[in-house]
Amino acid sequence: MEEPIHLAEAAIANGVDGHVDEDAKDPESNSLHQPLLKRNRTLSSSPLAMVGAKVSVIESLDYEINENDLFKHDWRSRSKTQVLQYICGKWTLASLVGLLTGIIATLINLAIENIAGYKLLVVGNYINEERYLSGFLFFAGANLLLTSVAALLCVFFAPTAAGPGIPEIKAYLNGVDTPDMFGATTLMVKIVGSIGAVSAGLDLGKEGPLVHIGSCIASLLGQGGPDNYRLKWHWLRHFNNDRDRRDLITCGSSSGVCAAFRAPVGGVLFALEEVATWWRSALLWRTFFSTAIVVVVLRASIEYCKAGACGLFGQGGLIMFDVSGVSVSYHLGDIIPVVVIGIIGGILGSLYNHILHKILRLYNLINEKGKLHKLLLALSVSLFTSVCQYGLPHLAKCTPCDSSLPDGVCPTNGRTGNFKQFNCPDGYYNDLATLLLTTIDDAVRNIFSINTPTEFSISSLVIFFMLYCVLGLITFGIAVPSGLFLPIILMGSAYGRILGVAMGSYTNLDHGLYAVLGAASLMAGSMRMTVSLCVIFLELTNNLLLLPITMLVLLIAKSVGDCFNPSIYEIILDLKGLPFLDANPEPWMRNFTVGELADVKPAVVTLRGVEKVGRIIELLKNTTYNGFPVVDEGIVPPIGLPTGATELHGLVLRAHLLLVLKKKWFLQERRRTEEWEVREKFSWVELAERCGKIEEIAVTKDEMEMFVDLHPLTNTTPYTVVESMSVAKALLLFRQVGLRHMLIVPKYQAAGVSPVVGILTRQDLRAHNILTVFPHLSNSRGSKKGH
Amino acid sequence: MEEPIHLAEAAIANGVDGHVDEDAKDPESNSLHQPLLKRNRTLSSSPLAMVGAKVSVIESLDYEINENDLFKHDWRSRSKTQVLQYICGKWTLASLVGLLTGIIATLINLAIENIAGYKLLVVGNYINEERYLSGFLFFAGANLLLTSVAALLCVFFAPTAAGPGIPEIKAYLNGVDTPDMFGATTLMVKIVGSIGAVSAGLDLGKEGPLVHIGSCIASLLGQGGPDNYRLKWHWLRHFNNDRDRRDLITCGSSSGVCAAFRAPVGGVLFALEEVATWWRSALLWRTFFSTAIVVVVLRASIEYCKAGACGLFGQGGLIMFDVSGVSVSYHLGDIIPVVVIGIIGGILGSLYNHILHKILRLYNLINEKGKLHKLLLALSVSLFTSVCQYGLPHLAKCTPCDSSLPDGVCPTNGRTGNFKQFNCPDGYYNDLATLLLTTIDDAVRNIFSINTPTEFSISSLVIFFMLYCVLGLITFGIAVPSGLFLPIILMGSAYGRILGVAMGSYTNLDHGLYAVLGAASLMAGSMRMTVSLCVIFLELTNNLLLLPITMLVLLIAKSVGDCFNPSIYEIILDLKGLPFLDANPEPWMRNFTVGELADVKPAVVTLRGVEKVGRIIELLKNTTYNGFPVVDEGIVPPIGLPTGATELHGLVLRAHLLLVLKKKWFLQERRRTEEWEVREKFSWVELAERCGKIEEIAVTKDEMEMFVDLHPLTNTTPYTVVESMSVAKALLLFRQVGLRHMLIVPKYQAAGVSPVVGILTRQDLRAHNILTVFPHLSNSRGSKKGH
Repeated sequence: MEEPIHLAEAAIANGVDGHVDEDAKDPESNSLHQPLLKRNRTLSSSPLAMVGAKVSVIESLDYEINENDLFKHDWRSRSKTQVLQYICGKWTLASLVGLLTGIIATLINLAIENIAGYKLLVVGNYINEERYLSGFLFFAGANLLLTSVAALLCVFFAPTAAGPGIPEIKAYLNGVDTPDMFGATTLMVKIVGSIGAVSAGLDLGKEGPLVHIGSCIASLLGQGGPDNYRLKWHWLRHFNNDRDRRDLITCGSSSGVCAAFRAPVGGVLFALEEVATWWRSALLWRTFFSTAIVVVVLRASIEYCKAGACGLFGQGGLIMFDVSGVSVSYHLGDIIPVVVIGIIGGILGSLYNHILHKILRLYNLINEKGKLHKLLLALSVSLFTSVCQYGLPHLAKCTPCDSSLPDGVCPTNGRTGNFKQFNCPDGYYNDLATLLLTTIDDAVRNIFSINTPTEFSISSLVIFFMLYCVLGLITFGIAVPSGLFLPIILMGSAYGRILGVAMGSYTNLDHGLYAVLGAASLMAGSMRMTVSLCVIFLELTNNLLLLPITMLVLLIAKSVGDCFNPSIYEIILDLKGLPFLDANPEPWMRNFTVGELADVKPAVVTLRGVEKVGRIIELLKNTTYNGFPVVDEGIVPPIGLPTGATELHGLVLRAHLLLVLKKKWFLQERRRTEEWEVREKFSWVELAERCGKIEEIAVTKDEMEMFVDLHPLTNTTPYTVVESMSVAKALLLFRQVGLRHMLIVPKYQAAGVSPVVGILTRQDLRAHNILTVFPHLSNSRGSKKGH
Repeated sequence: MEEPIHLAEAAIANGVDGHVDEDAKDPESNSLHQPLLKRNRTLSSSPLAMVGAKVSVIESLDYEINENDLFKHDWRSRSKTQVLQYICGKWTLASLVGLLTGIIATLINLAIENIAGYKLLVVGNYINEERYLSGFLFFAGANLLLTSVAALLCVFFAPTAAGPGIPEIKAYLNGVDTPDMFGATTLMVKIVGSIGAVSAGLDLGKEGPLVHIGSCIASLLGQGGPDNYRLKWHWLRHFNNDRDRRDLITCGSSSGVCAAFRAPVGGVLFALEEVATWWRSALLWRTFFSTAIVVVVLRASIEYCKAGACGLFGQGGLIMFDVSGVSVSYHLGDIIPVVVIGIIGGILGSLYNHILHKILRLYNLINEKGKLHKLLLALSVSLFTSVCQYGLPHLAKCTPCDSSLPDGVCPTNGRTGNFKQFNCPDGYYNDLATLLLTTIDDAVRNIFSINTPTEFSISSLVIFFMLYCVLGLITFGIAVPSGLFLPIILMGSAYGRILGVAMGSYTNLDHGLYAVLGAASLMAGSMRMTVSLCVIFLELTNNLLLLPITMLVLLIAKSVGDCFNPSIYEIILDLKGLPFLDANPEPWMRNFTVGELADVKPAVVTLRGVEKVGRIIELLKNTTYNGFPVVDEGIVPPIGLPTGATELHGLVLRAHLLLVLKKKWFLQERRRTEEWEVREKFSWVELAERCGKIEEIAVTKDEMEMFVDLHPLTNTTPYTVVESMSVAKALLLFRQVGLRHMLIVPKYQAAGVSPVVGILTRQDLRAHNILTVFPHLSNSRGSKKGH
């Protein structure tokens, strides 16, 4: 098989000249077939990545405090009331995020339990009447229908709603804005699609989508509603900046995890460990507040449903895998099986990551072929799943019910519970049907079930494990909303339980605990989280005594997995070409200066403090840069300084230039304006908007010869680094402060010399991009400036 | 009463001229009696704070990557083996921190349980024989003896071992190095002192000290042992920098919390929420690893002790307040008492902070008077405690044992357990003695005990509450190692239980749960932590079903408390004058530039690239600065630039200047050296050391006229900010990147003008210090640059 083209590479190959090709700009086209020709010694700044199923231009976020005259004036004039209003607003939004996420999670759960429950009830009736073929046709038909609803929505309305969404959230919180990721359409499609896909019995969970849903809610609330129907309340406008949106989305993602697992502390920790890049104590508290509200909502809904008012949604739904009943007693001797589980989990987890990576690259090739192909892929996976889930239980033998069990527990029909009768005579159950012909939540609950050491035969467990390994690999990449948590939990619990049976009498740990530990180890082996997984499992299984062994398993599995490959989220981020900045610079970055990096970039384009309209338009049209250094030459400096010096006045943003052009704030002659002039024309609210494209602006020929005074719009205090600074040190600054642009100033400054030698963006600082231009850096540690 | 002088103010008043007065430099003198005279428009950079009981010069830490030629060469020449060695070293150290902390915590527990147990056994025998006076004399005598051991050690050997140590750790991780805080003497005194103080029945816990002990262990391990006996292994030297020490101490503090509460996840979160300033995912994982090892050690020791091999140390000791037995069933109606607990907890917590603040200031005045006063203060608190603990139970009535209790449960004598007999006849118990005449751990266990609604009469609970409010306030400030956790838990549980009794039949929550919630609310009201407290309580009480109501209580109590005053740790930090940098800049900092700040500082002192020895010595003697900008004038720049320009070459550290002087690396003429010359003379290992004082260096008169080439020792890429940057933005950079010095460069640069207008340090950026010079800033929002 030919090696599929790596997307990130292709994207870079397309954008080497620093501009985006026309066909790459067109979101419908895709550039994966471009040959990898133009690789030269020019560092790319191509802002391309895979969003949904398309290659799109992505933008960086800007967390820098913009100190231009207008924002500064706004700050000076903010009253204490407004500051108080802002603080109250923050907390109101955080509570709304929790409330809405909780309610939507409840509705999704209700819908899934009812749809899937009804489907299984009908299938059960067919089987009872021994009409196996009709049963199968109904089962497969219903599944195909549900899958096609989910897939159609995802393919035609919101391609960004497919998949888990967690990598994109992670990228967002790192400073990468992917378009259409947090919109209202995405939210709706994600909700409906998730219901469809999970009810269809596909091997995917609602957990990842819930995290995405929480983040969408947070983003929509923060900007006051969907793009076209935004509330314009004054207090809401204070949240119209990247910093506050980042905080809200962090709240949203932790609320999502909390709603998925009913794990408030786990949700906060998940956001902290896996998703967020920046973190403060204050944010810890606010996310905790959001998740507390989610828990209250979930608890209230469970109390309400206990009365039977929620259809087929019974006790189960939200209290997921409660193993608090088991009496855990373990000794130092039990440490050996625990270590074994951890090691195997680490190996299997990294193997899973590896194979999933290959399959996702293959799927990318299929998905490119068009929307029909995507749809067909989804439907064939659904059909394969139905065939296996319905067909395989026929291979299992019927097992007689244990007579010591209370009446009515075995066999069960038409409701949740262990011991499904399926095709067996009364008094017998089919152990494979118990695991396969049920909702995915119930499957986990059954395999986690405690005090049932003899329930599952080893052959059934092996079949189950093999099947879900295959399904877990082929299902994830299809065009429906899908989470990774449950597939991995299913695989892990199966191998854990197999291990438990294999250990036999060597240990006296319950087989249900083996399943829990197996699931934990595979999660750690694939996702490489520790503290948050530990707490999620704690809250999920409701058993604190498991804590020490869970910790051990997680630590071992993560360490083993880290030896082989990065975490699954990092693999997906890389595959999508999202420019994620890691916390730790590569070692070789310490021997490589930003000056050397600036040398391989196109020469920096600067604007003058008072600039001709024509030149601004020309620049905006011909470059894709989002910030331009403003340089004043031959200025009249304060008394005591020699004249004729050159000054770096600051950095002006593309959005603000566009605003000036749009408002036609032009001057007849080249002069500096007074502060009141600009304040009359612009408000900080307008500056905070990200709007407009250069194509929309029409300027007459006369106006082209006029001037714009950029001084009041310029951020006068951009962060600068000296050209001799190492890339490692610059990267640290870039990431810690959350920059979009970083200016490089020359080591030697003098009159007549440009006070800025380059401008660095996120793309320039990525190890991968630098290595494309300087491939020798990675392997020649210490030989660069050789001795 | 005259308002005692605020230490931080006094420190600043002493250092207004930017230099430390001679008597302030002498660590034995204290400067609290200096009048607040010299307050003028000069910003202080006085590095004075209260360390132990003395005012000492404190240093900032430096987390900046120092890019001078020597370090850069070291980086280039590090082999892959060395990098691997470094990584292995990190993990080895993290595991050793966990191991040692676990072992020492076990030993402390064993010692306390045995000493206090034996003491109470003897007292119990006296009481059985109705020899009440002898009993009291023994009780009070033993307590005085134990207290005096602790106090003598703290007063004479390690004043820094007094108190909890958590504020200093917090300051350290924020970038403030307090001398003698993490030394071997401190560690030993802390261990022995903590055993003494807790065994003496004082109202203080071993929890805070354990955190400090963990950090001491981490610091000592990181530097290879005590100052005078350090291991000089090569791989250990790589850890001889502020960044790695910071990471290790974070591991140490979370191990300490874990050992104190057997709460591994809580420990990690405590370090994250309360202690640490910087945080990365990698660190999360490493701290988790340390706490996992602590848990394994504790678990092994418990298994060992269960066999009875540990003397009086029984089941109790480490499994602290297990309430997992209680069946928690609560409904939405129970929310009202929970909210009430939260609100009262918040009010009481902030009230406690307020009064404790006053008392600590009073104690500072007493402690200044000399060592004898400190000792007497500790002993009188001990005597008062003994009198109350022994005397008050006589006020309580004897209660008959509930006949439904199993035999031997009531009354108990000579061992842990509820229902102490004390002065009552057989078959009766004294409820106040149950709470008072026992170890502090047992008191908590008894008041948390569940299913004992009628055990404690309300009058006994009220007496208990009042007593521990007084004790909690007067005990904390005395010169013994003391933790804040347990006193607050005791107070909180008492008021919670009182509330439970008062609610009577309105709710059906267990009174033990009220006690737990009361303790949680008071902790949140005083310490203002949320997530970490929640998890600690979860792990402490071993009952996951409590999670939602605990969350609610914590959130309410913290919110209420925040309305009144800052957290207790912040109050102590402020009282000690430790320059802690907050994450969030004050609003007025956005309207105030670093240039304005530089104007009120003494003119910046610069060195030339090749400088005369005499001038270096003069500077080092006459200033206390730790970094000097190196400026080259009239340099010969690279081809194409005009000559005569001035260049900011970088920043050289005092430590490196001292090293040059010590090694006498002098040049006869003013010339630049080659790289090999300097590398022959210095190794990076020497540069990493922080050693020497200017007073120790002797230079001949001839040498004074010689030159030093500072170029290779200069950090060529210090972080710079432009003078027009707002203080808020500069503070963000300073704190995020963890700087010690930040250079201010002028807006207009030209030949002949100094390329640096100022240098900012931690002290300059503190809101308190700025407001001392510009008092109008805090209240005149918006009017500064008035319109």
